[in-house]
Amino acid sequence: VGHPVMVLGASGYGGLELLRLLDGHPGMRVVAAAASTRVGDPVGGLLPHASSYEGMSFVSVEEAMAVDAELVFSSLPHGQSASIFGRGLGKKVVDVSGDFRLRDPLLYEKWHRESHPHPDSLAEWAYGLTELRREEIREADRVADPGCYAAAAILALSPLVEAGVVDTSWIHIDAKSGISGAGRAGGEGFGFAEAAENARPYTVTGHKHIPEIEQELSALAGSEVEITFVPHLVPMSRGLLVTCAARLTREVSSAELIEAMRERFRGEPFVRVLDKDVLPETKRLSGTNTAEVTARADPRTGVALAMAALDNLGKGAAGQAVQNANLMLGFGETTGLATQGLVP
Amino acid sequence: VGHPVMVLGASGYGGLELLRLLDGHPGMRVVAAAASTRVGDPVGGLLPHASSYEGMSFVSVEEAMAVDAELVFSSLPHGQSASIFGRGLGKKVVDVSGDFRLRDPLLYEKWHRESHPHPDSLAEWAYGLTELRREEIREADRVADPGCYAAAAILALSPLVEAGVVDTSWIHIDAKSGISGAGRAGGEGFGFAEAAENARPYTVTGHKHIPEIEQELSALAGSEVEITFVPHLVPMSRGLLVTCAARLTREVSSAELIEAMRERFRGEPFVRVLDKDVLPETKRLSGTNTAEVTARADPRTGVALAMAALDNLGKGAAGQAVQNANLMLGFGETTGLATQGLVP
Amino acid sequence: VGHPVMVLGASGYGGLELLRLLDGHPGMRVVAAAASTRVGDPVGGLLPHASSYEGMSFVSVEEAMAVDAELVFSSLPHGQSASIFGRGLGKKVVDVSGDFRLRDPLLYEKWHRESHPHPDSLAEWAYGLTELRREEIREADRVADPGCYAAAAILALSPLVEAGVVDTSWIHIDAKSGISGAGRAGGEGFGFAEAAENARPYTVTGHKHIPEIEQELSALAGSEVEITFVPHLVPMSRGLLVTCAARLTREVSSAELIEAMRERFRGEPFVRVLDKDVLPETKRLSGTNTAEVTARADPRTGVALAMAALDNLGKGAAGQAVQNANLMLGFGETTGLATQGLVP
Amino acid sequence: VGHPVMVLGASGYGGLELLRLLDGHPGMRVVAAAASTRVGDPVGGLLPHASSYEGMSFVSVEEAMAVDAELVFSSLPHGQSASIFGRGLGKKVVDVSGDFRLRDPLLYEKWHRESHPHPDSLAEWAYGLTELRREEIREADRVADPGCYAAAAILALSPLVEAGVVDTSWIHIDAKSGISGAGRAGGEGFGFAEAAENARPYTVTGHKHIPEIEQELSALAGSEVEITFVPHLVPMSRGLLVTCAARLTREVSSAELIEAMRERFRGEPFVRVLDKDVLPETKRLSGTNTAEVTARADPRTGVALAMAALDNLGKGAAGQAVQNANLMLGFGETTGLATQGLVP
Repeated sequence: VGHPVMVLGASGYGGLELLRLLDGHPGMRVVAAAASTRVGDPVGGLLPHASSYEGMSFVSVEEAMAVDAELVFSSLPHGQSASIFGRGLGKKVVDVSGDFRLRDPLLYEKWHRESHPHPDSLAEWAYGLTELRREEIREADRVADPGCYAAAAILALSPLVEAGVVDTSWIHIDAKSGISGAGRAGGEGFGFAEAAENARPYTVTGHKHIPEIEQELSALAGSEVEITFVPHLVPMSRGLLVTCAARLTREVSSAELIEAMRERFRGEPFVRVLDKDVLPETKRLSGTNTAEVTARADPRTGVALAMAALDNLGKGAAGQAVQNANLMLGFGETTGLATQGLVP
Repeated sequence: VGHPVMVLGASGYGGLELLRLLDGHPGMRVVAAAASTRVGDPVGGLLPHASSYEGMSFVSVEEAMAVDAELVFSSLPHGQSASIFGRGLGKKVVDVSGDFRLRDPLLYEKWHRESHPHPDSLAEWAYGLTELRREEIREADRVADPGCYAAAAILALSPLVEAGVVDTSWIHIDAKSGISGAGRAGGEGFGFAEAAENARPYTVTGHKHIPEIEQELSALAGSEVEITFVPHLVPMSRGLLVTCAARLTREVSSAELIEAMRERFRGEPFVRVLDKDVLPETKRLSGTNTAEVTARADPRTGVALAMAALDNLGKGAAGQAVQNANLMLGFGETTGLATQGLVP
Repeated sequence: VGHPVMVLGASGYGGLELLRLLDGHPGMRVVAAAASTRVGDPVGGLLPHASSYEGMSFVSVEEAMAVDAELVFSSLPHGQSASIFGRGLGKKVVDVSGDFRLRDPLLYEKWHRESHPHPDSLAEWAYGLTELRREEIREADRVADPGCYAAAAILALSPLVEAGVVDTSWIHIDAKSGISGAGRAGGEGFGFAEAAENARPYTVTGHKHIPEIEQELSALAGSEVEITFVPHLVPMSRGLLVTCAARLTREVSSAELIEAMRERFRGEPFVRVLDKDVLPETKRLSGTNTAEVTARADPRTGVALAMAALDNLGKGAAGQAVQNANLMLGFGETTGLATQGLVP
Repeated sequence: VGHPVMVLGASGYGGLELLRLLDGHPGMRVVAAAASTRVGDPVGGLLPHASSYEGMSFVSVEEAMAVDAELVFSSLPHGQSASIFGRGLGKKVVDVSGDFRLRDPLLYEKWHRESHPHPDSLAEWAYGLTELRREEIREADRVADPGCYAAAAILALSPLVEAGVVDTSWIHIDAKSGISGAGRAGGEGFGFAEAAENARPYTVTGHKHIPEIEQELSALAGSEVEITFVPHLVPMSRGLLVTCAARLTREVSSAELIEAMRERFRGEPFVRVLDKDVLPETKRLSGTNTAEVTARADPRTGVALAMAALDNLGKGAAGQAVQNANLMLGFGETTGLATQGLVP
């Protein structure tokens, strides 16, 4: 029972989280899980308590693609999605990689330092941040999920950009991510003994999520938005927090900024706007599809500070993908997705 | 043997780190350790392997002050230092609290929301960031150690401000601190189960380290510098990282920014300027008095990004205090201070 | 809708986990949450995403007890449960404290070093480890939940004790717990900066869970079972692992021990017996009511090693309590309880 | 200046800790650091603040062996040491691998499941636990450092075994190690996101440190000692804790057990015997060469519980190696070794 779906790149952290969520989803049924480095291994080895995968083994991407399914979740590494999904395949696709997020092939070329194998296809994809593009996604056959940092940054900033209260000529975004953001392959520097008790920036000026943040905020602003973005790794497994700063264009209070967020996200099941005495925290969002957002005005300096927290594997990846798939397959948007994390 | 010194507030994290450092210091000898909540408890209960404290118990501040000593390290809570050290006591003082860092009593009043009990004394203190005010500290009787965030931010930004390459009308500083920054008293929210797997901002617009950063950077710039500052807690014990962003005033490369830092910190034993392919990390600085700094220019946006990492209890508190005391008592500046942390 | 229930001691870690689980329970409805130190505070302050508590504030125990409810979950501190629940109250009770676990008042007196206020009532309580005493619990009005360590140790050892393959004159149990086991009040030593990077034993010979483990295993063995038990704290929030060692009474293989476990727990929804190439891990059980158990025989030394892992706040406290309440109120035993934790 | 020494396997965690310690050693000078996977890389890339390695790059083992040196520290993987150091090389050797710890070639064969390439050489090595074999080590040319678990277990148990107060027909040892014990190569399962919030046993019955513990304790007892040993990984970087249990052979008190330890370790600079109200903790030993030991008698069950904590990379590896080299080269035993870790 349930619509047949498949997961490609199923043994990475994002793919595995998809399997975990789909195990509890009442309307979808995983008919293939592809993981090229684990072909033949039981899915249950990585996900021991997921009863729906009993007897299922990982297959190759080729084997998976031959299976009949209504929708493909792709968590393949950068480049692989680009080559496979360049042309339509008769299946709906939600892609978690960064291959189809940018509309402009030149922008893709600039930031990825290579040309896109299927530049013409880029226009056919919907950018999968549901809170921005719900109707587009509902009708789409192909949806490109936002990057984890981009999801958080856009949720934090979109209400302020739309309201015109921040100077969009320069917005600075400082991000902190748990180590699962580096992926399972991770490698040196991501071992427990190296990552524990360590906070560090990386890719200080050239992170690939920058152009998609600018693309989406510019679309909202109706003019070019320019950002700087510095990601950091901090010693936790999951969780992502962004703190954004921009000049205010006029005098507004923290309450007014928060009210703009409330307006923007009214009725959104997965965005929680925090009051002026509460600030976002990552821990209570672990395993959920919820983002917490809030903002403060600093009247002394005339600067707005906007923040968002989410689970990088949840709303930042797999949860967001299921949210979109729910729309694409006609389920209730919240089906199979949690909003309540563990405390403590 | 050794100059007699004492530590007030000796059972807090900062005070305890002072005791740890002084245990291994060849030229100073702790003659009293005051901790009001632990009077009578053996020092060795908190610091079990420090042989020089065998047989020593914590005393009250009053008892300690009656003991003869050349120099007092005060790690007392905010307000207590202000009332005790308002007038000279015939002993040199290095104060780790925030009570004597601001020159201007009105500034103190504005940020602490109360008037200073001894406003006239403020001008008598040297601001204890050695790399900025070495000669002043050497001659001083009373030195006010910088706040941990301030030490990092000023080290990261001072070379760029001095070089005039950043727009000082607005500098944004994003900081990440380990949980020891909240102090031993910490309380709810700082328990392991609440702090682990959690990243969160706090005091988004009003942190008390803001005015001292502005005071020191303005002195360097020769004009008013205005900053926004957002501190965050991340799940590690020690360690502090700041990432600062400001508009560039002219086209410069990352290499030029790094070169400005090298110039500024040439010969400094405790500041390590990192090359363009290395970024600061907190872990390898644990237990040391070393700060790592570097900077990048983003030509696309015209923004400078300056970073610094240090141990909040080391260069951010107790290590900095010993560095200053070394100067004040005529020791070599690096005496008793480590530069090599644990890896991993 | 749903049976009215209440939670006493609702702001501690165990009580809060009960609120979290009951928020998602389709058949129970929390009508009062008592927390003596937070009377008047909104429940949502501690549990922000639990929609069913919107508008509910913590009340005093007295206020709560005046509310009509079918079942009371009590997570009150040791001693408070003993005085309140000494006599029947016309409500079913699941008590998570250690006050009613021992049948023998003298045993209680010996281990708690005080006499029980209602010694006669002890015989009226069922010991709430469902896998041992399901039918008793189903009929009971008052159920005393096992201690977190006891739950794990008994699950690991009961199959071997029942099968008569281990020498019950001495079984050694070594336990490792996450810091939430120390409770929210925790205090010094449980702050992040003290607990991180630290492993340590505590209460090496006199832990209060010892007599309940001996009571339950002795009942299964039909003779006195004697144990030593050493608990340790390790730096994680949730999770509990026990590794038990005892002389084998006859030559058996690891496979036979595992088979004895399979027999014993066949059909149990919350006990997962691991194969000979898999060992228990705490992380994947976080937030669930599942216990993982397995055993190994060491033919070289003639010793059996039995292990169990669970979430100390889940199967070790709140999850176990809901499992019992499900039986007592006539729900399916697994209602509202998860078996799939986060990976990673 | 200083005796020329070299480190083989210098980029692993143990080798790197050797480099860190030797950087601050006043009497030894590293003339070569071999790391086969990093030949040509600067040593400072992994150990950025160690000034004595400026300009030094990693070389191959072959290149290193051609360099003139008085003493070789070998932290090579299992097997490589065995083949290189099978015959004398005209240099003193301290080997941190497990290749030369067992005297009996048959024992080696049984536990390593392969024959030793140089079985006759085994008798020429001294077992490098200084507290047991100080004089032997002082005279030795070749010293085989104990395994990290073995060092802790033998320190905890040797006083009780020597005193004849424990039944040596079966001693159970439960060990908890930080993740650095798995080495840098570590691999899957040791990434931060997998190791955090996770406690788990491994190699439940066949760990390779078992025979060396039995070998050394049997030598002390004068009869066969048999142990079971279960190692666990817990989420910390460094640190190792063992808790051992054995039947008492006669009625003794905790105080008597502790007194036996005091007797045994009187004057030892790196073993701290803890009083009856203190228990070992790993954190305060990080980066040191100190072990903490204590014991308790449980009169109720007639069982002794002995505990030891140490830094697996310190007293469990590199620190122990330097301690031995100090003796072999005629330095004071404590030269270059710390006893005071960070608190917190």
